[in-house]
Amino acid sequence: MYIDGLEAGVYDREVLQELVDGGLSAVTITAAFWEDAVETMQAFATWNDLARDNADLMLIVRTVADITAAQESGRVGIILGSQGPSPINDRLGFVELFHQMGLRVMQLTYNNQTSIGGSCYEDPDGGLSRFGREVVREMNRVGMIIDLSHVGEQTGFDTIRQSEMPVAITHANPRSLYDHPRNKSDELIRALGASGGILGLTTCRFFCGSYAQSGQTWADLVCRTVDLIGVDAIAIGTDLGPKTGPEELRWMRQGRWTRANKSDVAVGSTDVPAREWLASLRDFGQIEQALEGCGRFAADEIAAIMGGNWLRFYSSTFG
Amino acid sequence: MYIDGLEAGVYDREVLQELVDGGLSAVTITAAFWEDAVETMQAFATWNDLARDNADLMLIVRTVADITAAQESGRVGIILGSQGPSPINDRLGFVELFHQMGLRVMQLTYNNQTSIGGSCYEDPDGGLSRFGREVVREMNRVGMIIDLSHVGEQTGFDTIRQSEMPVAITHANPRSLYDHPRNKSDELIRALGASGGILGLTTCRFFCGSYAQSGQTWADLVCRTVDLIGVDAIAIGTDLGPKTGPEELRWMRQGRWTRANKSDVAVGSTDVPAREWLASLRDFGQIEQALEGCGRFAADEIAAIMGGNWLRFYSSTFG
Repeated sequence: MYIDGLEAGVYDREVLQELVDGGLSAVTITAAFWEDAVETMQAFATWNDLARDNADLMLIVRTVADITAAQESGRVGIILGSQGPSPINDRLGFVELFHQMGLRVMQLTYNNQTSIGGSCYEDPDGGLSRFGREVVREMNRVGMIIDLSHVGEQTGFDTIRQSEMPVAITHANPRSLYDHPRNKSDELIRALGASGGILGLTTCRFFCGSYAQSGQTWADLVCRTVDLIGVDAIAIGTDLGPKTGPEELRWMRQGRWTRANKSDVAVGSTDVPAREWLASLRDFGQIEQALEGCGRFAADEIAAIMGGNWLRFYSSTFG
Repeated sequence: MYIDGLEAGVYDREVLQELVDGGLSAVTITAAFWEDAVETMQAFATWNDLARDNADLMLIVRTVADITAAQESGRVGIILGSQGPSPINDRLGFVELFHQMGLRVMQLTYNNQTSIGGSCYEDPDGGLSRFGREVVREMNRVGMIIDLSHVGEQTGFDTIRQSEMPVAITHANPRSLYDHPRNKSDELIRALGASGGILGLTTCRFFCGSYAQSGQTWADLVCRTVDLIGVDAIAIGTDLGPKTGPEELRWMRQGRWTRANKSDVAVGSTDVPAREWLASLRDFGQIEQALEGCGRFAADEIAAIMGGNWLRFYSSTFG
């Protein structure tokens, strides 16, 4: 079973077919970056329509059983996620309401500080706020995955300590392998692993440096991260963006918070040539081939990294 | 089993105790009159908190099984309703999202014309709109009860014809018994009954005239309405408002649509003295006694009017 723990694209029937062809049984998509409650609800309504119109290719995941059902019927299960907490409009009670509407994964910050915590681009990151501690407790209570991919180090450590439920970094790499603000320190990754959390390694070239060059080099990044926290805590969050164009990139980086298009935000080294491997999500199986190619992992370990670990993690958090 | 098909009050532990003492197994409350999506969600969040804080007295009803569970545990099941369509922000897809959050009953208009239809205070009532027909189909699809209590006659007839699912008038009386714009014509009530719909007769003195004087007179109103459409289509929607004060009345009548406090809206004859019967929802059983007192109904007929008919109707609509 293949599971991609984080994507952010523009989805239509063609892309859904790509995910199915790629063998993906579940994908966490990004329904919101900066969208408020009503805007996120409209995105959910659009997803509900897409699901009805393409019921032969997809379903929306509410429980882990839905992922199994997707696999058995040769469809992809779409897990609704948000890369920031903007959907809840700073209201604690909205966490539960969005869970009822299907939201299963939420970041505490995207690229900016929120009422909850500091982002990885914020200096200093003041850590998890008073409201943030309430939100963490509420996400634990209702069964919504806390995603630390874009938070700063202090907020990350605070949240791992505060959360009673294991948390996720759905799409990032070790900073010790490629130095980028969006990548995480070995200390934070170790704390994540020790708490039962999970790290989705990203194939996004901005966060890979030279490891992005090929399936072999990326498999090497996986091996080195497994050295850090073990196979059980490692999964995949490609951060790929099917059909993402300039307008979507502008929204991701700029939102409504600045008049400047922040080309420095969420962009790292671009001196890596356009990839020849994983050119599309249809090629998701190339990751498995690369992991096999490095000759280090047993078959069940590869299966765990390709999806089994996400499935186990979702089982323990969706409730 | 007692069920009250419509109330609109300010609920706290004291009122919940009143409902339980009154033997009510389910009550449809008013979570919104003019509130938009976010405001209604905040009201739902407050209800969710109230339910958690008073789990010994209440639960929120999502399925008919929840009503049975409430009865068996001596609690009251709260059915979330809205007296207008303002929660959906004129967005078709929000009907499903609000159903997911728990909304089970929605009026197509409160006292004013909406994008869906005309109200009983609107002249002319242009009937069900193009968007209105979409909303009716969507409410049918997701299993949300269409409530015609405040719509105009034309919108009422149009909706009964359009809806594939039986609809409700949760709180009104026959206009032939007491002439008030909020009461319904015999023709509309017959069309409702013929389509499998249900009429919740109201004890609110504004809509009862002299029938409000006592349990006996109100039971007479019930008998005359049963003559019109039979026992199976008759239920109770008191429209009582525990702890409703001047501020709540102002909001109901004035909302944000006028600067004038519309004392003419939703108010009829007030020359009926303060009631001596049904002084509180704790006295809900007085309705049963009054129905027994008129000597017309068999025990199973009284049980149907007191709650059985609502339960059957909810069973066929909640899905």
